[in-house]
Amino acid sequence: MDIIDYYKWRYATKKFNPHKKIPISDIEIIKESIRLAPTSYGLQLFKVIIIENQLKKEALRKFSYNQSQVSDASHLFIFCNSTKVFEKDIDSYIENKSLSQEIPIEKNKGYGDFLKKTLLNKSSKEISEWTKNQLYIALTHLMTACASLKIDSCPIEGFDTSKYNDFLDIDKKSLSAGVVAAIGYRSETDNSQYDKKVRKATKDIFEID
Amino acid sequence: MDIIDYYKWRYATKKFNPHKKIPISDIEIIKESIRLAPTSYGLQLFKVIIIENQLKKEALRKFSYNQSQVSDASHLFIFCNSTKVFEKDIDSYIENKSLSQEIPIEKNKGYGDFLKKTLLNKSSKEISEWTKNQLYIALTHLMTACASLKIDSCPIEGFDTSKYNDFLDIDKKSLSAGVVAAIGYRSETDNSQYDKKVRKATKDIFEID
Repeated sequence: MDIIDYYKWRYATKKFNPHKKIPISDIEIIKESIRLAPTSYGLQLFKVIIIENQLKKEALRKFSYNQSQVSDASHLFIFCNSTKVFEKDIDSYIENKSLSQEIPIEKNKGYGDFLKKTLLNKSSKEISEWTKNQLYIALTHLMTACASLKIDSCPIEGFDTSKYNDFLDIDKKSLSAGVVAAIGYRSETDNSQYDKKVRKATKDIFEID
Repeated sequence: MDIIDYYKWRYATKKFNPHKKIPISDIEIIKESIRLAPTSYGLQLFKVIIIENQLKKEALRKFSYNQSQVSDASHLFIFCNSTKVFEKDIDSYIENKSLSQEIPIEKNKGYGDFLKKTLLNKSSKEISEWTKNQLYIALTHLMTACASLKIDSCPIEGFDTSKYNDFLDIDKKSLSAGVVAAIGYRSETDNSQYDKKVRKATKDIFEID
């Protein structure tokens, strides 16, 4: 299959088979796809909380407009973006870059200083908008990796952010739940799997200049 | 190659070969990958302006911190998000959905009314933040499609949004340049192609709950 086939195969699954679990080997591939997602300046200012526990999924469903995907999916991936950049975030990145690329850390100091000057004085609102955008890159890596493994997914924006943050107790870590993916296997009774994909015509999306 | 190989192959290209152009058949595949990108409620509230003209790329480079990728890439894809939702956006979607899925339009009217109630009274700021997030899904479809075609790409957030919007004259269409992708072929002299990818360890990104 080529990439366009994956994009065609994927659909926002409305009803999962609650009995079918994703094997751990596939979960590891999906995690790797997220880990490889590019982020601004390479800083990876996000965490992903993976929920498999049934009681927790049911609790979260209540904060997600009662969408059945949240409790019926095999796994919930909650993408959480940083709401603040700390000096240590930049220091760890510079350390990791120096180690990975075998460059003396002093040579990367100037870049670290530039990042600090650029990012440390931004407001929490500015940082959150920017880091939240980047979550959607990681989310898309997950969706495409899932499609390549014939795993279904449903991206979810319809949830109560503060209730999620309270439940996950992540405010204190300067994180906020930005977007969620429910992943698993479609139920045979999910009629939306038979719906034709609805997309605008190419000419209504692109302008060539 | 599997999907992880594409994610590993891709890197943010710093220097393009300005003489190598992407064939039109590949541009069509990349456009299709963007057209298939999922969006909230399926509304596709974005446009993509594709720039191939050298003079225009050079003009835009000035509004992009003089980054050479902007003028040296084969094509620039400027992803523009809607800053306002109009009644006609929802009506066209409902019409398209009804036609594509062969459902009488009256059956989708209730859903259209729900979308109008949900979206038409939101502020331009709320709409823009939401539609901009979704651009990153389309951007990621482009990056992965490019990797699958051995085309290099560089996602760009470092540009002056108002200057882009003025240059493209898109304010009047309630659109704003949200994120840019420069695509083409790496220059042999781009040293960053040899750099090891810098990523956090899996344990520092994921929390299993």
